[in-house]
Amino acid sequence: MYGFGQNHFWGNTVLNLLDLLTPETRNAPESGIVELVNCGREQENLIPLWVGEGDLPTPDFISNAASASLAAGETFYTYQRGIPALREALAAYHSRVYGMDVPAEEIFVTGSGMQAIQIAAACVASAGDEVLVPTPAWPNMAAAVEIRGAKAVPVPMDYADGAWSLDLARLGDAVTPRTRAIFLNTPCNPTGWVASLETLNGILALARERGLWIIADEIYGRFHFGAGDRAPSFHDVSGPQDPILYVNSMSKNWAMTGWRIGWIRAPRVLGQVLENMIQYSTSGVPVFVQRGAVAALTEGEDFLSAQISRAEQGRRIVMDGLSAVNRIHFAPPVGAFYLFLGIEGVTDTRRFALDLLRETGVGLAPGSAFGDAGKGFLRLCFARRHDHLEDAVGRIQAFMQRD
Amino acid sequence: MYGFGQNHFWGNTVLNLLDLLTPETRNAPESGIVELVNCGREQENLIPLWVGEGDLPTPDFISNAASASLAAGETFYTYQRGIPALREALAAYHSRVYGMDVPAEEIFVTGSGMQAIQIAAACVASAGDEVLVPTPAWPNMAAAVEIRGAKAVPVPMDYADGAWSLDLARLGDAVTPRTRAIFLNTPCNPTGWVASLETLNGILALARERGLWIIADEIYGRFHFGAGDRAPSFHDVSGPQDPILYVNSMSKNWAMTGWRIGWIRAPRVLGQVLENMIQYSTSGVPVFVQRGAVAALTEGEDFLSAQISRAEQGRRIVMDGLSAVNRIHFAPPVGAFYLFLGIEGVTDTRRFALDLLRETGVGLAPGSAFGDAGKGFLRLCFARRHDHLEDAVGRIQAFMQRD
Repeated sequence: MYGFGQNHFWGNTVLNLLDLLTPETRNAPESGIVELVNCGREQENLIPLWVGEGDLPTPDFISNAASASLAAGETFYTYQRGIPALREALAAYHSRVYGMDVPAEEIFVTGSGMQAIQIAAACVASAGDEVLVPTPAWPNMAAAVEIRGAKAVPVPMDYADGAWSLDLARLGDAVTPRTRAIFLNTPCNPTGWVASLETLNGILALARERGLWIIADEIYGRFHFGAGDRAPSFHDVSGPQDPILYVNSMSKNWAMTGWRIGWIRAPRVLGQVLENMIQYSTSGVPVFVQRGAVAALTEGEDFLSAQISRAEQGRRIVMDGLSAVNRIHFAPPVGAFYLFLGIEGVTDTRRFALDLLRETGVGLAPGSAFGDAGKGFLRLCFARRHDHLEDAVGRIQAFMQRD
Repeated sequence: MYGFGQNHFWGNTVLNLLDLLTPETRNAPESGIVELVNCGREQENLIPLWVGEGDLPTPDFISNAASASLAAGETFYTYQRGIPALREALAAYHSRVYGMDVPAEEIFVTGSGMQAIQIAAACVASAGDEVLVPTPAWPNMAAAVEIRGAKAVPVPMDYADGAWSLDLARLGDAVTPRTRAIFLNTPCNPTGWVASLETLNGILALARERGLWIIADEIYGRFHFGAGDRAPSFHDVSGPQDPILYVNSMSKNWAMTGWRIGWIRAPRVLGQVLENMIQYSTSGVPVFVQRGAVAALTEGEDFLSAQISRAEQGRRIVMDGLSAVNRIHFAPPVGAFYLFLGIEGVTDTRRFALDLLRETGVGLAPGSAFGDAGKGFLRLCFARRHDHLEDAVGRIQAFMQRD
């Protein structure tokens, strides 16, 4: 991946600069998703379903709020924890969605959901510590942990009878004296699995018993295709005394992937520590970006409902279209907006994804990007235009019949 | 600072949540600058000279470029290394300022100069490693190193005969087998010291001899009050084979502090590693923010010249006004836009800054925020309105005569 590097001279020694990097940075993996995207930048007739991103730009009422802030000269340093108006809007959003009173003091604005995860990783894991991550999983949590010199320990989930499941006994068996936290992403990217209240209770019991943090990534919580208008949440089963760090993002709900704004909900006693972590990473989020987020939260519920409904129809299109294709199998996603599909007889899905891209223009993410447990699968994002989804399904069908 | 925390129950044990954090995050210091700012948010008649920030909003031609990008729907994920147009504009800027051909492949866009520093720290220092930092110094580099479990080793500079200087022998003596890098900020925040070519050569020789990285923070390089229209740079003395990571920011030159955008210049062989570090921290900078930066670089040289000239006049105002005040002493700043002033007989300048703030409304940053070597000093930012500077000088004069 890196080629042969470049030779450098120090004193009388010829050195390779890459050898002088910390092992954590040198060994950090290239995102297996971005690798495909980079391969497809020049692809003709591309239907990109590889990234976790819809195809609608941010609605104007959000962008206009940011532009108005810029025009008003809101271009100075600001509160590390987020502007009060946004912390209050996020607290009100939590209160509304989870049916409980969440104070603004428990909300910390971050420069993306990814940065929320990076800060959470710093809070729970030092070099040599371990964090449990059920897999398949979006790879970035594990990477954030390992860049700190800590270890992300995969706990494979089970795929059987058309459904994914998490074996709580296996999770418990993976706890060692160095384990500090459990990372749980529900609804899950890439599998679409959604933890039940029973599972959440079981994980919480384990965390309480073994003295572990929980990092709860419920970013896709509103994209839920089961009963209820959101997925079950740790908010439903935990008390204020539980050590849970919620990481979240404006990206998916309000078509703001490019804005890089997210948040953490945490016990308020962590306030000064989280302020410091923000100070020493990006020192806050632009005020004009935060104004856009306030508009999204206060005026964006209709847009979000339309997004969810559109994704639900997209889910139906790809499920109907691909369930009829020989050798393709999948668990119907209960949440999030991905179909994680397996292909009988194909183990190297990175190779398959590259071939599919080159021959049909359909871009899927290889399951290997989500850990060993994802090998043999491909991730397809269905929060996209329906005609494109139908077109992509047709091309995949044709590609599968070619042999 | 944290109060008594909050009690939490795990099993039969009562725990304090703060005790469950990693020691690196629990012990990260509150910024001694932000502490003062937070104290002064309600202060009447405030003249805030504590933060490293001018008082002009971002020029319209920059903000308008961002708004146009938003209106065009540039709200999606983008290149981790930065959009090509910005990398090319930054490369052209380097080429122009340093008189050498700098390729765009050596430029990596980051979500603030602070994030550039955070990524550089990850590249050079693992847990237990050491990074040398001449002090007084802006505290955030040391904090970024220590959050990784590494150690920032202060190397005190000398203040004598109205000038700061760096003792290269002392720097060399501070190198141990665990030392991995030297962080050099020139022109220096807070002292205004500027490294000569001779000093830069000496540091480079030490780095080559002992196999160390150099992290070069030359953010204030254009604010130079000595000969030449910029400060000496490692660009002037190093070769392409030297392991130097340049960290930089759009903040100061173009009145873009609130935008959170910076960059790294690094040998291109590090490209994939830096892309990964960006991916796993904030996953890139908003395209619309990058469009603003392109406008600043391509159309902003006149604005920058005016900023520099304004700071130079501000420097003259505060130097003339304060040199006549009994007990106040300082080294005339050769670069950056701060006066770092000492007061005879005052050792607790944090207390002094709080008193000055409460009694006069003038906000200065206590020197203790910049390490032990800064004790007994206060930092004053003179990149501000001249009438405000004159007013502040008058208030300080009166305050000093009050006893």
